[in-house]
Amino acid sequence: MNCKIALAQINVTVGDIAGNAEKIINSINKAKSHHADIILFPELTLSAYPSLDLILEEEFINANQTKLLEITKHVQDIIAIIGVIYSHNGHRYNALAVIQNGQIIDYVLKTNLPTYDVFDELRYFHPNTQPHPISVRIKGKTYKLGIEICEDLWDDRYDIKVTRDLAKQGADIILNASASPFYTGKMKQRIVLVREKVEAFHLPFVYVNLIGGQDELIFDGNSFALDAEGRFAAHLPASQEAIAYCSFKNGRAENPQADPIMHELKELRAALILGIRDYFYKSGFKDAVIGLSGGIDSALVAVLAAEALGPDHVYTYAMPSQFSSDHSFVDAEQCAKNLHIHFDTIPIESVYKSFLNALKNPFSGTSFGLAEENLQARIRGSILMSISNKKNALVLTTGNKTELALGYCTLYGDMCGALAPISDMNKPDVYRLANYLNEQYGFDIIPENTISKRPSAELAEGQYDPFDYDIVSPIVDDLLCQNKSIEQLIKKTADPELVYKIFHLIRATEFKRWQAAPGLRITPKAFGQGRRMPLVNHFTF
Amino acid sequence: MNCKIALAQINVTVGDIAGNAEKIINSINKAKSHHADIILFPELTLSAYPSLDLILEEEFINANQTKLLEITKHVQDIIAIIGVIYSHNGHRYNALAVIQNGQIIDYVLKTNLPTYDVFDELRYFHPNTQPHPISVRIKGKTYKLGIEICEDLWDDRYDIKVTRDLAKQGADIILNASASPFYTGKMKQRIVLVREKVEAFHLPFVYVNLIGGQDELIFDGNSFALDAEGRFAAHLPASQEAIAYCSFKNGRAENPQADPIMHELKELRAALILGIRDYFYKSGFKDAVIGLSGGIDSALVAVLAAEALGPDHVYTYAMPSQFSSDHSFVDAEQCAKNLHIHFDTIPIESVYKSFLNALKNPFSGTSFGLAEENLQARIRGSILMSISNKKNALVLTTGNKTELALGYCTLYGDMCGALAPISDMNKPDVYRLANYLNEQYGFDIIPENTISKRPSAELAEGQYDPFDYDIVSPIVDDLLCQNKSIEQLIKKTADPELVYKIFHLIRATEFKRWQAAPGLRITPKAFGQGRRMPLVNHFTF
Repeated sequence: MNCKIALAQINVTVGDIAGNAEKIINSINKAKSHHADIILFPELTLSAYPSLDLILEEEFINANQTKLLEITKHVQDIIAIIGVIYSHNGHRYNALAVIQNGQIIDYVLKTNLPTYDVFDELRYFHPNTQPHPISVRIKGKTYKLGIEICEDLWDDRYDIKVTRDLAKQGADIILNASASPFYTGKMKQRIVLVREKVEAFHLPFVYVNLIGGQDELIFDGNSFALDAEGRFAAHLPASQEAIAYCSFKNGRAENPQADPIMHELKELRAALILGIRDYFYKSGFKDAVIGLSGGIDSALVAVLAAEALGPDHVYTYAMPSQFSSDHSFVDAEQCAKNLHIHFDTIPIESVYKSFLNALKNPFSGTSFGLAEENLQARIRGSILMSISNKKNALVLTTGNKTELALGYCTLYGDMCGALAPISDMNKPDVYRLANYLNEQYGFDIIPENTISKRPSAELAEGQYDPFDYDIVSPIVDDLLCQNKSIEQLIKKTADPELVYKIFHLIRATEFKRWQAAPGLRITPKAFGQGRRMPLVNHFTF
Repeated sequence: MNCKIALAQINVTVGDIAGNAEKIINSINKAKSHHADIILFPELTLSAYPSLDLILEEEFINANQTKLLEITKHVQDIIAIIGVIYSHNGHRYNALAVIQNGQIIDYVLKTNLPTYDVFDELRYFHPNTQPHPISVRIKGKTYKLGIEICEDLWDDRYDIKVTRDLAKQGADIILNASASPFYTGKMKQRIVLVREKVEAFHLPFVYVNLIGGQDELIFDGNSFALDAEGRFAAHLPASQEAIAYCSFKNGRAENPQADPIMHELKELRAALILGIRDYFYKSGFKDAVIGLSGGIDSALVAVLAAEALGPDHVYTYAMPSQFSSDHSFVDAEQCAKNLHIHFDTIPIESVYKSFLNALKNPFSGTSFGLAEENLQARIRGSILMSISNKKNALVLTTGNKTELALGYCTLYGDMCGALAPISDMNKPDVYRLANYLNEQYGFDIIPENTISKRPSAELAEGQYDPFDYDIVSPIVDDLLCQNKSIEQLIKKTADPELVYKIFHLIRATEFKRWQAAPGLRITPKAFGQGRRMPLVNHFTF
């Protein structure tokens, strides 16, 4: 196989068919000017991924098909492979249009449709059952392109092994168009998997992934190509739009590269920034509002927001009560100063007192407890929401995954917000990323005291978080990821009481997460659309 | 076919494997004492439906299988057909265990797995591809039971027509075990469909449906049997637990009945009460907290709550501000008096003022608007949540579907609550049910003025709802149900501006519904888990 391939790692937006088409056409023109023979786009390029129930709307499907015909005319002197929804004989397919000389020469249909976690493809699409390569003419020679879509590569759980079937039928190269969402460590898995296929079938492999944030999901790009010998022929940046090229001669890279070095925290930071930025900009917002408590979670969110949106677009507020300690304010203010973000103070004591006065009757004869604690959090939530209404800004909620799992958060209180940037990060990872950021900045952009002090919600006198996060967080993660049974966990931790306690806390607080803000997914199992637990649920141990 | 069949319409609870098993065994014993030959239970009887991601937990599957073996021992002198998750060769199946003489004689596997709307069965289960009848001995004779599961009956969209295939293979009777959630008019559809099958295949047909509330879904029972001539052989009550019997001689009912008379509003009322009651009791709560505004929505919710939980378990609060009219208080108080529910008044003006004072800085230079309006709703939400925390009660949110669709509601304000009983009822239906209830009570349990006055949120001076609900509600319903395209709607209404406005309001407020309380589903397309729209969504007209 001799050819030059453009990997078009573009950031498309769900439903923006006209805008996405323009990006596609621009990329095609760029690739042509670089004399590429083929340009490969990500999965469902034109509609973007995941379009969810938009796919059930007739007008949406029609608009996609109409626009594809327009794009087709622009494809001259190159083969363009574009992700589209293909509607045929009453079925919808997750497809790739293969276009040459102003004509769609064929559609490749996705075979293995993921229907687990955040994926619902069998809700929308009909599966292909007979993958086969497509013959094309390039510079006077005929090649068989083995084209597949995302999950077709991850064939472990499926009967049909698409890559193998394409290779068996004489494919000269494998081209995979993906919309593979980020989680920490995912890129390494992709490389291992593609390398396995390359070694098994001795074919070059080009993998193009979507880039961009879409609600809870972050598509990290990281597109790459391996030659038939398993050497890197291209690697595109993580969480950035890019177009790059690779050339093969007899299946071997013309310019082989060293394996890329992946840095987990660097990638995580880039992914979170992309997720925040795209959620804001694609929703038409520029400014963020954050409650800055002096604690680690809100400090980390403030840094990420400042990086994503620019410091001038981040408005932070300290909202002290009679239970707040001095260091909370000092640490919050210092963090804001370091970041050059807006900072103001709104004490809540008088509002809190007026609430207690209004609630005198229903509260009479009761003592200080959960209601009073939650009320403080809800006052703060209402203040942030009021400011967000005034400023046409979005509130960022600052809870982490461990707290959210244990229900250590107040519904309509600190859970208020349009987006939860760190709701899929466990508490130890929050510290890890905070320390990494301080390292990268070369000084304590997040104040040292914020990192070293004992965590507290400061909703009552002398209150500290009732968990040892270093012990509790891994148990939470093990329970959520469903790989570990209770029995295994008890063996592992030798603390059955704690395991049961955590299990029951997670179960008892599902109702809070049902109403939680969308959170950026950075692990294989996040709260949100990929985890569907009943609220009424009597299953226990 | 000669036999007596017990239809066991039982209310099981998700995950309560021991409790569900007890109900199953009790029903078997009762059916035996009535000399039934067969007892048919609803779909997934043992685990209850839908167990969602519990099904992915190994321990859950094991617990189900262990308990099934225990139940099996109790099955003597009767054939029991029980809905269970069957795990085999690495696949999970939505199955029925057919048990006789203390042994599982076979498993029936579900063929057509619904994966649309609220259903995600391909996420959990592997489909059967070869439905076939099961031979059993009853009173010395051999019969072929044509057993199928829920969706296997609704075969329009599927290639495999299960009922037909069972009939073709010589089934003497069709037995369908269902978990078919309620919506208005659904029971009529079921009867039409079953009657079609009976007429096509000249077989008696026994349909047993689950009863009970599970989060958003209400299973209304309404189990029934038709004989081979299409006459009713049994009909069980709507939204009530029941066991009933039908006897066939040569496929004909021994005691044929007249067709049941269905009353839409009566069934709707019963379904909503069941949905509320089960959500509370199955979650371990007895008491409800409701903000009573004097308007129609909260009045209707108060009536339903009083009927579901008992008047002594309903706590209502008027929370007047400076924008509240006198009639609001009078109407709210009258409604509470009529219902004999608790009623108290908590004015919010002083809390509102203290908030405005705290927010002086960020609000300076701005004029009264959305932020101030939302703030009032959020104060009320915080008050209700505080009381719910104190009383260990659940807040019922009172928004209807039309408002929720248009975003005419405040996130973390009037949207606060554990359950939204009328969030799938459009505004005209709210009036319809309110009038029906007044008729049934024989007096205006909901005050006449509440019904006749012009709707207002009373969040600003002289404010009234900016919609003509009689015109807007049907357009909203048409847009949500996806049966009508924008083009069709414009033709129908001859008001393109209004159609576009509504379309854009629905799109622009998806973020609110993402964080909405679970709402009881009473139409074919509700907000909630059955409707999955992207938040970032640029698709427009």
